[in-house]
Amino acid sequence: MEVLKKSEISRGSNMMASTSNLSNGFLSICPSSSKGDYYEESSPKIVAGDEGYVFEDVPHFLDYIPKASTYRNPLQDNPAYAVVKQYFVDPNDTVAQKVVVHKNSPRGIHFRRAGPSQRVYFESDDVHACIVTCGGLCPGLNTVIREIVCGLCHMYGVKRVVGIDGGYRGFYSRNTIPLNPKVVNNIHKRGGTIIGTSRGGHDTKKIVDCIQDRGINQVYIIGGDGTQKGAAVIFEEIRRRGLKVAVAGIPKTIDNDIPVIDKSFGFDSAVEEAQRAINAAHVEAESTENGIGLVKLMGRNSGFIAMYATLASRDVDCCLIPESPFYLEGKGGLFEYIEKRLKENGHMVIVVAEGAGQELLSGSSKSTDQRDASGNNLLQDVGIWLSHKIKDHFAKQKKIGQQKMTINLKYIDPTYMIRAIPGNASDNVYCTLLAQSAVHGAMAGHTGFTVASVNGRHAYIPFHCITEKQNKVVITDRMWARLLSSTHQPSFLSQTDVAKNIDK
Amino acid sequence: MEVLKKSEISRGSNMMASTSNLSNGFLSICPSSSKGDYYEESSPKIVAGDEGYVFEDVPHFLDYIPKASTYRNPLQDNPAYAVVKQYFVDPNDTVAQKVVVHKNSPRGIHFRRAGPSQRVYFESDDVHACIVTCGGLCPGLNTVIREIVCGLCHMYGVKRVVGIDGGYRGFYSRNTIPLNPKVVNNIHKRGGTIIGTSRGGHDTKKIVDCIQDRGINQVYIIGGDGTQKGAAVIFEEIRRRGLKVAVAGIPKTIDNDIPVIDKSFGFDSAVEEAQRAINAAHVEAESTENGIGLVKLMGRNSGFIAMYATLASRDVDCCLIPESPFYLEGKGGLFEYIEKRLKENGHMVIVVAEGAGQELLSGSSKSTDQRDASGNNLLQDVGIWLSHKIKDHFAKQKKIGQQKMTINLKYIDPTYMIRAIPGNASDNVYCTLLAQSAVHGAMAGHTGFTVASVNGRHAYIPFHCITEKQNKVVITDRMWARLLSSTHQPSFLSQTDVAKNIDK
Amino acid sequence: MEVLKKSEISRGSNMMASTSNLSNGFLSICPSSSKGDYYEESSPKIVAGDEGYVFEDVPHFLDYIPKASTYRNPLQDNPAYAVVKQYFVDPNDTVAQKVVVHKNSPRGIHFRRAGPSQRVYFESDDVHACIVTCGGLCPGLNTVIREIVCGLCHMYGVKRVVGIDGGYRGFYSRNTIPLNPKVVNNIHKRGGTIIGTSRGGHDTKKIVDCIQDRGINQVYIIGGDGTQKGAAVIFEEIRRRGLKVAVAGIPKTIDNDIPVIDKSFGFDSAVEEAQRAINAAHVEAESTENGIGLVKLMGRNSGFIAMYATLASRDVDCCLIPESPFYLEGKGGLFEYIEKRLKENGHMVIVVAEGAGQELLSGSSKSTDQRDASGNNLLQDVGIWLSHKIKDHFAKQKKIGQQKMTINLKYIDPTYMIRAIPGNASDNVYCTLLAQSAVHGAMAGHTGFTVASVNGRHAYIPFHCITEKQNKVVITDRMWARLLSSTHQPSFLSQTDVAKNIDK
Amino acid sequence: MEVLKKSEISRGSNMMASTSNLSNGFLSICPSSSKGDYYEESSPKIVAGDEGYVFEDVPHFLDYIPKASTYRNPLQDNPAYAVVKQYFVDPNDTVAQKVVVHKNSPRGIHFRRAGPSQRVYFESDDVHACIVTCGGLCPGLNTVIREIVCGLCHMYGVKRVVGIDGGYRGFYSRNTIPLNPKVVNNIHKRGGTIIGTSRGGHDTKKIVDCIQDRGINQVYIIGGDGTQKGAAVIFEEIRRRGLKVAVAGIPKTIDNDIPVIDKSFGFDSAVEEAQRAINAAHVEAESTENGIGLVKLMGRNSGFIAMYATLASRDVDCCLIPESPFYLEGKGGLFEYIEKRLKENGHMVIVVAEGAGQELLSGSSKSTDQRDASGNNLLQDVGIWLSHKIKDHFAKQKKIGQQKMTINLKYIDPTYMIRAIPGNASDNVYCTLLAQSAVHGAMAGHTGFTVASVNGRHAYIPFHCITEKQNKVVITDRMWARLLSSTHQPSFLSQTDVAKNIDK
Repeated sequence: MEVLKKSEISRGSNMMASTSNLSNGFLSICPSSSKGDYYEESSPKIVAGDEGYVFEDVPHFLDYIPKASTYRNPLQDNPAYAVVKQYFVDPNDTVAQKVVVHKNSPRGIHFRRAGPSQRVYFESDDVHACIVTCGGLCPGLNTVIREIVCGLCHMYGVKRVVGIDGGYRGFYSRNTIPLNPKVVNNIHKRGGTIIGTSRGGHDTKKIVDCIQDRGINQVYIIGGDGTQKGAAVIFEEIRRRGLKVAVAGIPKTIDNDIPVIDKSFGFDSAVEEAQRAINAAHVEAESTENGIGLVKLMGRNSGFIAMYATLASRDVDCCLIPESPFYLEGKGGLFEYIEKRLKENGHMVIVVAEGAGQELLSGSSKSTDQRDASGNNLLQDVGIWLSHKIKDHFAKQKKIGQQKMTINLKYIDPTYMIRAIPGNASDNVYCTLLAQSAVHGAMAGHTGFTVASVNGRHAYIPFHCITEKQNKVVITDRMWARLLSSTHQPSFLSQTDVAKNIDK
Repeated sequence: MEVLKKSEISRGSNMMASTSNLSNGFLSICPSSSKGDYYEESSPKIVAGDEGYVFEDVPHFLDYIPKASTYRNPLQDNPAYAVVKQYFVDPNDTVAQKVVVHKNSPRGIHFRRAGPSQRVYFESDDVHACIVTCGGLCPGLNTVIREIVCGLCHMYGVKRVVGIDGGYRGFYSRNTIPLNPKVVNNIHKRGGTIIGTSRGGHDTKKIVDCIQDRGINQVYIIGGDGTQKGAAVIFEEIRRRGLKVAVAGIPKTIDNDIPVIDKSFGFDSAVEEAQRAINAAHVEAESTENGIGLVKLMGRNSGFIAMYATLASRDVDCCLIPESPFYLEGKGGLFEYIEKRLKENGHMVIVVAEGAGQELLSGSSKSTDQRDASGNNLLQDVGIWLSHKIKDHFAKQKKIGQQKMTINLKYIDPTYMIRAIPGNASDNVYCTLLAQSAVHGAMAGHTGFTVASVNGRHAYIPFHCITEKQNKVVITDRMWARLLSSTHQPSFLSQTDVAKNIDK
Repeated sequence: MEVLKKSEISRGSNMMASTSNLSNGFLSICPSSSKGDYYEESSPKIVAGDEGYVFEDVPHFLDYIPKASTYRNPLQDNPAYAVVKQYFVDPNDTVAQKVVVHKNSPRGIHFRRAGPSQRVYFESDDVHACIVTCGGLCPGLNTVIREIVCGLCHMYGVKRVVGIDGGYRGFYSRNTIPLNPKVVNNIHKRGGTIIGTSRGGHDTKKIVDCIQDRGINQVYIIGGDGTQKGAAVIFEEIRRRGLKVAVAGIPKTIDNDIPVIDKSFGFDSAVEEAQRAINAAHVEAESTENGIGLVKLMGRNSGFIAMYATLASRDVDCCLIPESPFYLEGKGGLFEYIEKRLKENGHMVIVVAEGAGQELLSGSSKSTDQRDASGNNLLQDVGIWLSHKIKDHFAKQKKIGQQKMTINLKYIDPTYMIRAIPGNASDNVYCTLLAQSAVHGAMAGHTGFTVASVNGRHAYIPFHCITEKQNKVVITDRMWARLLSSTHQPSFLSQTDVAKNIDK
Repeated sequence: MEVLKKSEISRGSNMMASTSNLSNGFLSICPSSSKGDYYEESSPKIVAGDEGYVFEDVPHFLDYIPKASTYRNPLQDNPAYAVVKQYFVDPNDTVAQKVVVHKNSPRGIHFRRAGPSQRVYFESDDVHACIVTCGGLCPGLNTVIREIVCGLCHMYGVKRVVGIDGGYRGFYSRNTIPLNPKVVNNIHKRGGTIIGTSRGGHDTKKIVDCIQDRGINQVYIIGGDGTQKGAAVIFEEIRRRGLKVAVAGIPKTIDNDIPVIDKSFGFDSAVEEAQRAINAAHVEAESTENGIGLVKLMGRNSGFIAMYATLASRDVDCCLIPESPFYLEGKGGLFEYIEKRLKENGHMVIVVAEGAGQELLSGSSKSTDQRDASGNNLLQDVGIWLSHKIKDHFAKQKKIGQQKMTINLKYIDPTYMIRAIPGNASDNVYCTLLAQSAVHGAMAGHTGFTVASVNGRHAYIPFHCITEKQNKVVITDRMWARLLSSTHQPSFLSQTDVAKNIDK
C-alpha cells in the first residue's frame, strides 16, 4: 500500500476528487491542504485505490519526525501472546465504513485497523503516559482508565502513567495522580472517574507546555465532541513543536451522537438504566386516574438514548427528541394526543430528550426574560417546562368548561442517576478494547487519532472525521418509524416538514 | 378478662388516671367518653389490670350488635392448619407496647394480639369484601391487596372481593374491580397499586351509602394518616347505622411516621432504593472539583427515610430533616459546613428530606411572591430551593472577592423512582402478615381497627392510637446522635434550642 | 437495682425457682453455680423482681476486678452527642423478652439495655481492640467490622484496632491486620469479610496467650453458634487469669436460628437474594412441559430462609425444611404431590433447605456406601439427592407403564451467590447498631456478652442464652401454617406426628 | 441485479470457483447443485459481481411458485411510516460480510439486506402465522415472540398469530396458543418463553402436515443450531409440496457460537448476569485462606460466554474453554498454576465453560464406568469434576508431605439463573429488530431464511450458512490473547499445539 507523502497530498486530493460519488460528502469536509505553511495544520492522509476505495489514514510520527527510531514490540515476549498467530495487525488491513453496498457501488472510505504493530516507537522505560477525562460522567470511564493503565503496564511493561486531575485544566493547575494496575484494580466497578473531570479549561499553550516540561510522551484524552476537538488542537501544537508525543483520543458521549463509529461506550449501560425511570413513570401513571409519567433523558442534540430506551421499554406512549420538532396546541399537537391517549388508556408515559423542543422553550422564555437572570433559568429545562405546560393546559381546560379531565403528572429526571452507574458487562468489554487499541496505536507511533469500533472492527480514525458533525436520529429513517409504530404517537410533521426532511 | 362496658368507661378512665406515669401521655389522647350521645362516637375500650397493666381493645360487632351470630372458623377444616397446635389466638393474649422497663415500672399499654379466632362472625358465602388504596404510592401496596384477596379466599373460602377504583372517591363514582387469586397472582412483583389510588374524595355519607347499597360487609382501607382518620369516620357512621360491616385499616406511609407500630410497610424497600440515588450523588460529587451531590428524599413531616438512608449509606456528609431546624448563613450554619467539608474532602453529599427547612422557604418566598403565581411554586421544593441557595452563595462569594470556590452541584430527586418499586422480600412477608391479620380480625367480628406489628408481634390497634399524632425523629435521642456522629455535620442547634428540645 | 453478688447466687437461683412458670425452661439451662471452684466458670447474674420479673445480667469487670478504675465517657465531649438528652443509657433499663402477655402473667426474663454508659473502664489511648470473624460468609460482616472500627475511633477516640486474620486460628498463626476508619471506609459495599474467616482453630490457651502477649484488651468476636461458645470459653479463661479484657460477641448466622434475638444480621439480605434463584426456577419450570424448578437454600438445622423466601416469593409450590420430616413414596408423599401439581399446573417450584430430609439421605446412603469413598459424598447434598430421586421416580414410572409423565427438572444451588452479597440497607443499619452496642458495652466494662436486638431494642445478653439451643421453625405454629396455606403442599404429617409435635 | 435462475446455478458455481481466495472456504460448504432431482433440495442462489463480489441470496416464493400474486405493502398507509423517506429497502442493497479489507482484496460474500418491501406476497387478512421456540432458555425469547406478534399486527394488520406449544412436537401433539398484542404486551419483562419449549420432537412430515392442515402460511422458528437445521428441512418439504408458506428462522443460542452473525440475542444479558456469579466466587475466595472460587458457565462447544464474562469482570485468574485444551498435572498444568496463584495472591477465581476439558473427563470416566449407571453421570459435569480433582490434588499433596496447602474451594453453577433472566435493554432492542426483519422478510415472499445482524446491518441469510459450522473462540487470535494477558493464566499449549492451531 502506498502512503501519500506530504508533497503528494494534492495528488491525493485530486484522486479523491475523482471518487466523486462518495455519499457523505467527505471531500468538502477535509481541511484544505493548500495552506502553504507546512506546520500550520496537518493535512488528511488519504490513499485511493480501485473501485472507489479510499483509505483515510491517521497521522504518524514519521510524518514529521522522519528518523524516529523503532524497537521490537515487547508483546512478542509476553507469554499470553506467544501462541498467537499473526498477533500483529497487518499494516494493510483497513476497515470499511460502508457495509450496505450494491453490486457495483464504489467501495468508499476505509480506516486503519487498530492493533499492535511489529515495531514500536517507544522503549517501555521511556514511556511517560498521561490520561485525562473531560466533560460529563459516562458509564465506563473508569474502565477505560483502568485498561489504558493495565494495557501499558501488562502488555508493554510501561511503568510511568499518571492521571491529569480534573480535566484539561488539571494539566497546568493541579498535581498529577500516579496510576498503576494496583490503584486501578477495582475502579471499573465504580461509576464516575477516579481522576476527576471538568468542562472547559482548554488552554493549548499551557497544556502543551506542561506535556513538554513534564516529559510526557503519550497523552490519552477521553471526552466528547469538544474534548476531541481540543485533542486535535493539542496534537497540532505538538506536531508544530516537533515533539515525539502521541495524542490518542477515546471518544466519550453518553448521547451516542458521534459519527462514523458504531456506538460510544456507556450508551448501552445508560439505556439500560433509563428503563428504571421509565418503569417508575409507568407504575406511577398506571396507579392514578389520568396519570402521566414524564421522564427526561439525556440528549442535548440527539435523541438516541430516548429512542433506544423507548424501543427497549415498550411502556412509552410518546417520545420527544431534538430531531423531531413538535408542537403543543391544535390538531396533531401533543395536547391532543395526550387527551386521546388518556381517554383510551387512562394513563400514559412520555419520554423527552433534554434537547427536545428547545425552539418552543426559547420562544416562550422571551416573554419572561426577567426570570432568566437567576442563572439557572428553569424554563430551559424542557422537562420542567413541559410538565408545567401540560398541567396548565389541563387546568385551563377545566376552567373554560370543556371536558373536565384532571391529570396526575409525575415528572422524573434520572439524568445523574444514569450517568453515575458503572459500565455494564458489554460496555466493560468495549472499553477494554478501546483502551487497548489506543495503547497499541500510540506505541506504534500513530498520533492525532481517535479509536472506535467501525462496523464491529476497531479502527484508528482521524480526529476531524468524528468532530466535524454530530450523529442525529434521522426521522425519515426506519428506526424512527419503528419507534412511531411502537408508541403510536403522531409524527408532528406537516407534509411540508416531510418534504423538507427528505431533501436534507 | 373483663371487658369494660360502655357504662363503665368512666371507671376505666379513672383507673387509667391512676396509672399516672404512663410515659406517652396516653390519657390526654383518648377521646373523651363523656359525649353523652351514644351513637355520636364510640369510646375507647379500656381494661386495666394490676401493676399498671392497661389493655386498649378495639371495637367489636358485639359492642353494637349484641346478638350477632357466630360460626365455626372454617380454618379448622383447612389441611394447612389441621396440624397446627393452638392455631387460634388466645383471646387473652395482649401485646405490650413497652419493652424497655425497670424492675418495678408499671406495665403500660397493651393491644389485642392479632390472629384467627375460634368463632367467626361471617359465613364464607356471605362475605362481600372490598379493598381501597388511598394516597401516594408505597412499595408493597400490591402485596397487601394480593394477600387480603388470597387470605379471604384460601383461608376462609370467601368468593366475593372487589377493589374500589382509585381511592375513596371510587366508592361512589366508579365501578368496582373484581378481584380473585388468579387476578392478583403476580401483582406483588409490580410497584404501584392495581386498583388505583387518589388523594381526598372522602365523603362519608356517600361512601357508607355505597357500602350499604352494594351489600359490602368487609372494608379494607389501605392508606396513611388522613386515610385512617377517614376510616375511623366511616366506621363510626357504620356503627351509627348499626351495620354489620367490619372496617379494617392497614396503615401505609412511606415516611414511617405512624406512632405505636414498629414500621410501616414499604419503608425498608424505600430506604434500600434511596441508596441508589445517594450513591449516584456520591459518584457525581467525587468526580468533580468541589462536587456537591444533593439528594431530596421523602419525608414531609419526619426524616426517617433520610436518616436511615444516611445511616445505611455512609456516604452522606449532611442530612437535613424536618425535625432538626437548620440555618444557612453564619457561624455553625450550613454554608460554613459545606465550605469546611469541601476544603477537607473535595466533595460532599447532602440528603434533605422534603419537609426540611420549610420555615426557611416560607420566609424567603415572601420576598419573591410574584414567582408563586405559576401554580407549582418551585420555592416550596426544598431540594430546588436549597440547590439555588447553595449555588448563589458560592457564586456571590466569588464576586465579592472572598476565597474563590467554584462548586459543582448536582441535584437528584428520586422520589417517584423510589415509590414505584415493588416491595422487597422483607416487606413482602410483612405485608402478607398485615393482610392476614386484617382478614382474621374482620372475620372475628372486630371492626374499627388497624393492624400493625408492635414490638415484633401483630396486633389490633384502635384507629385513634395511630392517627392522633405522628412519629418524629427525636433529635435529642441516640439514633440522631448516631447520624450526627457518622456524618460529622453540625447539630445546627444553639444552646437554647437544645434546652427547648429537652423540655419537649 | 440490686446486683446479686457471687455469694448470693444461690439466693438468686432460689428466687428464680419460685418463678416457676417461665415458659422457656430457663432454670434448667443455667450452668449450675455450685461448682465450688470460684474461677472455674462464672455464674449467671440474675436479679429477680416482683411479678415474676427476672433480670439476667451480663458479666462485668467489677465481678472479678473490684477496683477497676473508671473514666469520664469521652462521648460527652463529642459535638454529635452534645445536644442529646439522656444520651447515656439508664442503668436500670431492661429489655423484656416477653411481649405477648396476659393481664396477670409473670413478667418474665429481661436483659440489660445496650447503650453508652456515663463512666467507662478504659482510657481511649489505652484501648487495643481486635476483631475476628469466624465461620461462613454472611451479608453484613464487613459492615459490622466497619462500624466497630468507626465506633471505637469516632465515638471513643480509640486509635488501635486490629483485625485477626482468618478466624480464630489467626490469633496465634498470623499477623494482625491494622484497621482504621480509612481502611474500612467502603467495605460495607462489598460482600465477604476483609479480615478473612475460617472454621475451627479454637485453641483457648493459645488465643488468650496471644491476647495477653499483644496487650489486646477488647475482643470483638463475630460468628455463629460454635464461635459464640468459643467466645464464652475465651471469656472464662480471661476471667480466670483476671485480665481486664472485654469479650463481646456479635452473633452471626445466615440461618437466623439464634434464640432470644429478633433476627440475625444478613438474614433479610439473604432472603431477598434467594428470590432471584426462586424466580429463575419458576421461569425454567414454566417454560417446559412438566417443568420442575428445584432450589436448595441454606439452613442446616432450621428452615427460616427457605420459609421466608417461600412466603416472600409466592411462586413456590413446596417448601421442605429440616423441622418438617417428609417422605417420598406413597400416599401423602412428595411424589404424589408433584404428580398432582404437575397435572393441575403443568409446572412447579420446590424449595429445599440444605438440612431437610437428612434422615432420608442417611438411610439411602447406607445401601450405597461404596459411593461415599469419594470424599465429598454427593448423596449428602439434599438438593442433588432429591433431584436424582425425583428424576428416577418419573423415569421408572414411565417404564412400568403407568401414566407417562416426562419431567424436566432444573436444579439450582444459589448458596454461595447468596452468602457473598453485601448487606442491604436494612441489614446495614442493623449491623451499625449491633457494632455500636458492642463498643459501648465493652467500653462500659461489660464482658462475656453478646449484643442483639430483642423485641426491637438492643440488649446485652449472656453467651449461654444464645448458645444453649437453636431456634427452629415451629411447624405447629402459625407461620408454618401460613406457608402451607400459601403453597398448598401436604403437611407430610401423620396424626401421630402431629400429636408428637404438639407434645414437644 | 441479475438473479441466477436454477439452470444457471452451475454457471454461478463456476463464477464462484474463480473467486478462489474466499477465506472461509464457502464453496465446499455449499450443497451441491447437481442432485438432478429438482425438488429434492433447493440450491443456493448465488450472484457474482466484479472484484470478487458474491451475493448469496435467500429463497423466494417465486423460485417455485412463479405466479404468486403480490399486493401493495400496507405499511404505506401506516401513519408511522408515512413520513419515512425510502422506507422500503432497496432490493439491490446487500450487506458485506467482510469489513476488514485490503486495498485490492476481493469484495467477498454479501447478503440480502433486511427490510420491508414495496410489494408483499400476502394479504393481511390471509396471513395465518405461527411461532415456535425450541431448545434451552435464552434471555430475550419473549421479546422476539412479542415483536413478531406486534410487528405482524401493528405493521401489517395481521390478525391470526398462534404460538406452537412446547417446541417442535407441539405442532402435532398440542393445541396452539392464540397470540395478540394484548397477550404479549408485558412478556418482554419476563424470562423464559410463554409458549414453552422443548428439545427434539422434529418430525418433518407431521409438522408440515400440521402446517398445511391448519392453513398456516408463515412459520417463525426460534432456536439454535439444530432447530435451524430442522427449519431448513421443514422449508425444503414445504417447497417440495409447493406450498406458499414462508419459513423464517431467528437463530438463538446463548453460547453465541453461530457463524456469520454479529452476536446472538441474549448473549449480552447472559454475560452481564454471569458477572454476579463471578463476583460471588471472588468474594468467597477472598474471604478464606487459599480460597478458590470456581464458576461454571454455559458453552458446550464454544467459550464465548466464559471469555467475555472473564474480560468484563477482571476478577478471574483462569478461564477454561472448550477450544483451549488444558491439563491438570505437571509443568505448565492447571494445578501448578493454582499453587502459584494462591501463593502470590492467597485466593483465585476460575471460570470453566461447560464444554471445557471434555477429553479429560471422558478419559477419567472410563476407569469409573460403574458410576455412569446412575443416569446423570456427574463426571460429565466439568464443574463438579474439576472441583473434585482440585480438592483431591491438594488433599493428596498434604498427605505425601509436600508443602501443606489447605484450600477452600467454592463451586458455583449459575447456569439456570443466567438463562432465566429477561433480556436487557440492548438485547430487547436487538430482538425487536430481528423480529421485525423476519416479519418483513416473510411478508415479502422470502422463505427458507434466517435473520441476523451482520456487521451491524440486518440481513437475510440462507439457513445453510449458519448451520454448517459453529463459531469458536480462535485461541490463536487476539481476543483470547487479551484474555490470557488479563488473567495471567498459562496457555496450556505446547509448541506442537501452537503449530497445530496455526495450521487450522
